[in-house]
Amino acid sequence: MRRPREREILLAHGSGGRAMHQLVEGLIVPQLDNPLLARLGDQAIFELGGARVAFTTDSYVVSPLFFPGGDIGALAVHGTINDLAMGGARPVALSLALILEEGFPMADLERVLASVRAAADVTGVHIVTGDTKVVGRHGADKLFINTSGVGLVADGAHIDERRVQPGDAILLSGTIGDHGMAIMSQREGFTFQAPIASDTASLWPLVEVMLAAAPGAVHAMRDPTRGGLATTLNEIAARAGLGMRLQERAVPVREAVRGACEILGIDPLYVANEGKLVAFVEAGAAQAVLAAVRGHPLGREAAIVGQAVEDPRHYVIAETDFGGTRIVDMLAGDPLPRIC
Amino acid sequence: MRRPREREILLAHGSGGRAMHQLVEGLIVPQLDNPLLARLGDQAIFELGGARVAFTTDSYVVSPLFFPGGDIGALAVHGTINDLAMGGARPVALSLALILEEGFPMADLERVLASVRAAADVTGVHIVTGDTKVVGRHGADKLFINTSGVGLVADGAHIDERRVQPGDAILLSGTIGDHGMAIMSQREGFTFQAPIASDTASLWPLVEVMLAAAPGAVHAMRDPTRGGLATTLNEIAARAGLGMRLQERAVPVREAVRGACEILGIDPLYVANEGKLVAFVEAGAAQAVLAAVRGHPLGREAAIVGQAVEDPRHYVIAETDFGGTRIVDMLAGDPLPRIC
Repeated sequence: MRRPREREILLAHGSGGRAMHQLVEGLIVPQLDNPLLARLGDQAIFELGGARVAFTTDSYVVSPLFFPGGDIGALAVHGTINDLAMGGARPVALSLALILEEGFPMADLERVLASVRAAADVTGVHIVTGDTKVVGRHGADKLFINTSGVGLVADGAHIDERRVQPGDAILLSGTIGDHGMAIMSQREGFTFQAPIASDTASLWPLVEVMLAAAPGAVHAMRDPTRGGLATTLNEIAARAGLGMRLQERAVPVREAVRGACEILGIDPLYVANEGKLVAFVEAGAAQAVLAAVRGHPLGREAAIVGQAVEDPRHYVIAETDFGGTRIVDMLAGDPLPRIC
Repeated sequence: MRRPREREILLAHGSGGRAMHQLVEGLIVPQLDNPLLARLGDQAIFELGGARVAFTTDSYVVSPLFFPGGDIGALAVHGTINDLAMGGARPVALSLALILEEGFPMADLERVLASVRAAADVTGVHIVTGDTKVVGRHGADKLFINTSGVGLVADGAHIDERRVQPGDAILLSGTIGDHGMAIMSQREGFTFQAPIASDTASLWPLVEVMLAAAPGAVHAMRDPTRGGLATTLNEIAARAGLGMRLQERAVPVREAVRGACEILGIDPLYVANEGKLVAFVEAGAAQAVLAAVRGHPLGREAAIVGQAVEDPRHYVIAETDFGGTRIVDMLAGDPLPRIC
C-alpha cells in the first residue's frame, strides 16, 4: 500500500478505516519490516520456549472516560483480552500502563482501577506488570491506558484469516453499534427513548465455547471495534483473497441504536463494538457453532449474517432490505473519534 | 504503604521517587492485588506453557522527542529491552503502541520509526504487534509511545532482589546522569562546554556477558532510570531488607554532567540513566564480573561502587569525598519531569 500523502497526522489516521490502513500498511509496517507485524492480526502468535503464545497491545484514549455500560478501565482490559481471544488464545497476563494528566482526580483513578480489577477477575487474567507516567496540565487529556497481554493458544485452535474459504458462514455474536453509540450519546449529551449502553465485555468465555463446539471449524475471528463490522469484513476479504456476501436484514441492531444512527446519519455497520465477535466458520459446522454461541449469555442474539464467496475484487456486498445489493466499503474519514 | 494523601495527581507522582511509590504501592498495587505485580520488579517473570518468560511494559512521554544521543523511539525500544534484560531474560518480541496528536508531522513519525527499527535490530528483537491512536490537537503532547515486551529467562539466571546478601558488591556499568542532563540541556536550551548526550542503549548484550562470566553470582540487576541511582538503591535496600554502603568517589560521572548538575543544583545520584545497570554480585565473583563488563563497549567505565550491608533501617549511606557519610534518600518531588 502507498504511504499516506498527508504531511501531518489527521484524526482519520486513528479511525480504523482507510486512512489508518494507509498509515499502518503504507508507513509503519514497511518501516518496521517484520512478517508477524505484517500479518496485521489483532495479535502476534509465535513460539516462545516451546509454547505457542499470543501477544498484543492497545492504547485506550476513549473520551469520556466513564460512559453507560463501562469505563476506560473495563474497556482496556476487555479489549486486550479480546485481541488474544481472537487468536484462539487463553489470556494469561496483562500489563497496565497509565499516562495521567497532572490534576487528574485520585478518586477517578481509584474508580478506573477497581474497574480494571473487576474486568480482569471475570476472565481470571492477572495484571502482572505496569507503568505510571504523569504529564503536565494540557499535556494529555486526563488519562490514557495501554494494556498489553500474553496468552497461550488453545490446543487445536488454528485461527488465521488466510484459512477462510468460499462458503464459510459469517457468524456475528450479537447486536452491532452499541459501544460507539453509547460513547456518542454520552459525549454529545443526547438522550434517546431507550438508554444505550456499551457492550464492553470479555469474549474469551464465548471463544472457549466455540472452540469446544467444533475444533478446527473456526477459521478466523475478529472483534469489530474501530471502523465497525464493515471495515473488519473488508479487511478479512482482502487478506483471505475472497469476497463477502452480507444479508443486511440478518445483522442484529438494537432499536435505540438504529434510531440514534439514523439521527446522526451514521450506518451502524461502521460503528465500533467492544463485546462482539465475527467468526468465519466452515459451512458444515456453522449451525452447531451458532447453537453453542446462542447458549452463552454473551451470544444470545448471535446470527449467521452472510457467507464468504469467490470474488477477485474482494468486495463486501450487502443484500439490502429492498432486495437490492450495495457495495459496503471500508470506513473513510472518522465520524467518531476517540471511541476506544 | 499508605495511599497518597493528595486528591489530585501531581507531576511528582510520575517522578520515580517517593510520591510515585506511594501512588503505586499505596493505591495501584493494592487495587489490583496480584503477587507478581506486588514484586514491583522491572518485569514480571512467570511460567507460560512450560517456558519461563518475562513480560514488561513502559509508556514514554519524554519531551522533547528528539535529543542529543537519541529520540523517543530509541528510548522506548531500549527501555523495554532493558526491563527484560534486568530479569536475566533475552528480549524476543516487542509491541509498539503510538498515541499521536492531530497535526503531528508525518516526517517526524518516519524518523521515530526508523529509530525504533534501528534500536530493535541491534538486539535482534522484533516489533511483532502494534496499535495506533490519534487524539485531537492539545489532547496529547505530540507523541507518546508504549512498548511492551516478552523475553525468555536465560538458563541459570535467577535474578531477584530478595537474593541480595550482605557483602554483595554493587557494580555500576558506567557513568550516571547522562540521559537526564541531555534532556534537560536540550529542553532548556543550555549549552555547556562539552556536549552531553543521552546514554540510551540496549543493555542485553552486557547482561549476556555478565551471566556468562559468573552464572548464579548476579543476584539482582536494575537500570536506574527515573529517580536515578539513589532511588534504585533505596528500592533494592527495602526489598532485600538490607542497607547499602556507597563509595561516592567511585561513582563515575562525566565532567560535563557534573558541571551541569552543579549549575542546576541537582545531585547526579538522582538523575535518570537509560543505558546503565547496577548489579548486586556475590563478593567472590565481583572482580571476574567487573572484568567481563569492562571488556564490553557498554561497560568500559564500570566500577564497584559499594556493598550491601546489614542494616535494619535499610539506609543507603554514602561515604563522601570528605571522609564523612550522609544518608542518601529516595527522590522527593520531581526536578526533571517527562525525562522518559
